[in-house]
Amino acid sequence: MRTSVAIIGAGPAGLVLSQLLARQGIDSVVLESRSRAHVEQRQRAGILEHGTAQLLRDSGAGHRMDQESLVHNGIELRFAGEGHRIDFAELTGRSVLVYAQTEVVRDLIELRLAAGGQLLFEAPATEITGIHSAEPAVRFRQDGAEHVLTADVVVAADGYHGIGRASIPADALRTWERDYPFAWLGVTAAVPPSTEELIYCHSPRGFALHSMRSLETSRLYLQVPPGADPSAWSDERIWHELDLRFAKSGWKLDSGPIVEQSVTPMRSFVAEPMRHGQLFLAGDAAHIVPPTGAKGLNLAVADVTVLADALSRWYTSGDTAGLDSYSATALRRVWRAQHFSYFMTTLLHVDPTADDYARRLQLAHLDYVASSHAAATSLAENYTGLPLAR
Amino acid sequence: MRTSVAIIGAGPAGLVLSQLLARQGIDSVVLESRSRAHVEQRQRAGILEHGTAQLLRDSGAGHRMDQESLVHNGIELRFAGEGHRIDFAELTGRSVLVYAQTEVVRDLIELRLAAGGQLLFEAPATEITGIHSAEPAVRFRQDGAEHVLTADVVVAADGYHGIGRASIPADALRTWERDYPFAWLGVTAAVPPSTEELIYCHSPRGFALHSMRSLETSRLYLQVPPGADPSAWSDERIWHELDLRFAKSGWKLDSGPIVEQSVTPMRSFVAEPMRHGQLFLAGDAAHIVPPTGAKGLNLAVADVTVLADALSRWYTSGDTAGLDSYSATALRRVWRAQHFSYFMTTLLHVDPTADDYARRLQLAHLDYVASSHAAATSLAENYTGLPLAR
Repeated sequence: MRTSVAIIGAGPAGLVLSQLLARQGIDSVVLESRSRAHVEQRQRAGILEHGTAQLLRDSGAGHRMDQESLVHNGIELRFAGEGHRIDFAELTGRSVLVYAQTEVVRDLIELRLAAGGQLLFEAPATEITGIHSAEPAVRFRQDGAEHVLTADVVVAADGYHGIGRASIPADALRTWERDYPFAWLGVTAAVPPSTEELIYCHSPRGFALHSMRSLETSRLYLQVPPGADPSAWSDERIWHELDLRFAKSGWKLDSGPIVEQSVTPMRSFVAEPMRHGQLFLAGDAAHIVPPTGAKGLNLAVADVTVLADALSRWYTSGDTAGLDSYSATALRRVWRAQHFSYFMTTLLHVDPTADDYARRLQLAHLDYVASSHAAATSLAENYTGLPLAR
Repeated sequence: MRTSVAIIGAGPAGLVLSQLLARQGIDSVVLESRSRAHVEQRQRAGILEHGTAQLLRDSGAGHRMDQESLVHNGIELRFAGEGHRIDFAELTGRSVLVYAQTEVVRDLIELRLAAGGQLLFEAPATEITGIHSAEPAVRFRQDGAEHVLTADVVVAADGYHGIGRASIPADALRTWERDYPFAWLGVTAAVPPSTEELIYCHSPRGFALHSMRSLETSRLYLQVPPGADPSAWSDERIWHELDLRFAKSGWKLDSGPIVEQSVTPMRSFVAEPMRHGQLFLAGDAAHIVPPTGAKGLNLAVADVTVLADALSRWYTSGDTAGLDSYSATALRRVWRAQHFSYFMTTLLHVDPTADDYARRLQLAHLDYVASSHAAATSLAENYTGLPLAR
């Protein structure tokens, strides 16, 4: 089996890349270890940066998104029992879309398959060979048999646990990592959101986030200790804790049936460089951010946008400059997102290891972000997405 | 001995307060433990915020300042061998003045004495009595004798080690404190500055700052371990280390005779509230910031500006509202300055306790401040001074 670009992983990074390449007439094959149904149901992020939405639109994958997404022109920062609006539209002229990653993935799969794109599900990649040759290849299993997909380049968009990064010798990779002393309990509730915009809430009891999937379905998050057992959290306990953290005079949180709940660890991770020979890393395969800044999905899309441009340039003119600078270009945005995600995380969570001074300083920082035009603009420009360097 | 406002300490806070009160026709006595010569020679800060300079001007103490100070419209952030200008004038419409604290103190002492103001030097305060009465008093020694200064209110502007804060019962005071794992070696050199504006420099070897006292005299600072011995730093070693940290292609640091050098610890400290009965704390008596943000002197002046307004209101109309809200009003600015000073300190120093991730994130943060209009504006508005809430 032969293609131009072998892509491992049918998450947003792999699917967007496949779509962008198809628009340039470059063929690819996407190998995905899980089933289509599984991929289409994984609960993940739900906030699309201004530029991510535009990219999806430009690539032809924005039709249903523009019908069903919610445009958000700001968020609420809530602390000390008061709400402070960060007005993205006023501060940056940009907005974000609430549109779940599962929906993005569904749209892209449908689009690729309708155009005859090759997406192989339940086809786990097992080995990447010839990384330093002009014909790298991916071995994979499907229907009980071994196959080989040969290509010009291999793109590993196979997540933190994938074989992509693991195929690069340890001495060729530098990694940075940070674990946080807290996690998120995320729940999906069959109740209309109690807010029109997301509420990022700091309380002495911990962080809470009120998000949403649609006008009928709420997503709510609670800071919990790392490794917390989701089954220890009854519906009653969850709603009670949410009430305590979100408490604001004159505001009420509507409760409803919780249809799904899970605990997500919080981690920061970066691997450099994002290229090794003819193997390119994209998205979670190369970097993880804590979800507080809503940057994971957007960063993955930014990676493959840069990469698609670089591949197009190479296939069109033989010019390798874009491929050669891919890692450096992508990493600058990655580190910006790392810093912003760290900023949002430390601004809003209660760090059980922090001293009194750090906790008081955190309130001063929140007060500043809520009262300074410059500080609010800094938050807003990062949240809605800085311009893509291509 | 009787006065309206007894002021302990002839630093900038005490002297500015005395001057502001005199302009309102309110009499005060300033008690200072050291000699006039000592007070006029203490090397301290040298950057006046826009609002501090205006306050000194408005109070009649700006004449020599406006002749001899240097107007600075920006600073240079230097890291990774490159300089990035933060243009205060463009970003905020404001600037700062380079004018040493010793000069401010000299001007104020001269002004107060010329107007018949009572400044008692070598008059250490030993006890504050009657704090909860309408006639608080300060016991002090002078010329070998004990004296008592009775007043309506006592203002302790007597620094971190003064008797003011120590006179408040521990259970009536809450304190926050942070020590940093580094200190500053500060040197005064008889050589014209190698730069027109201050250079705040981060290097893997540590922080360095190029400041100045005048067009003939440079002030230079090096991050050193806490408790470093200044005598271990020969002139040659100092200039060599400065060269290594400031290294930038095409730029040269001019060296010259070092006329003074000392090591300053880095500490953050806040005591709340800043009022106890008829005793009011101002400046370093209530709060300390690390010097990276140049906020110490400016914060002291902000405190007494609020306090002078409150006292004037009280003496004019009997209205205690200003005095009652003094602590809360001053502390909001104090915590803003605490956060900014912490931000500047952690942005620029090498923290020996930081992990790899934190060090890489620091570079991403520097890169962001140097490239984002909003982030640079945030730095600039804090450095030049946020408007005073009075």
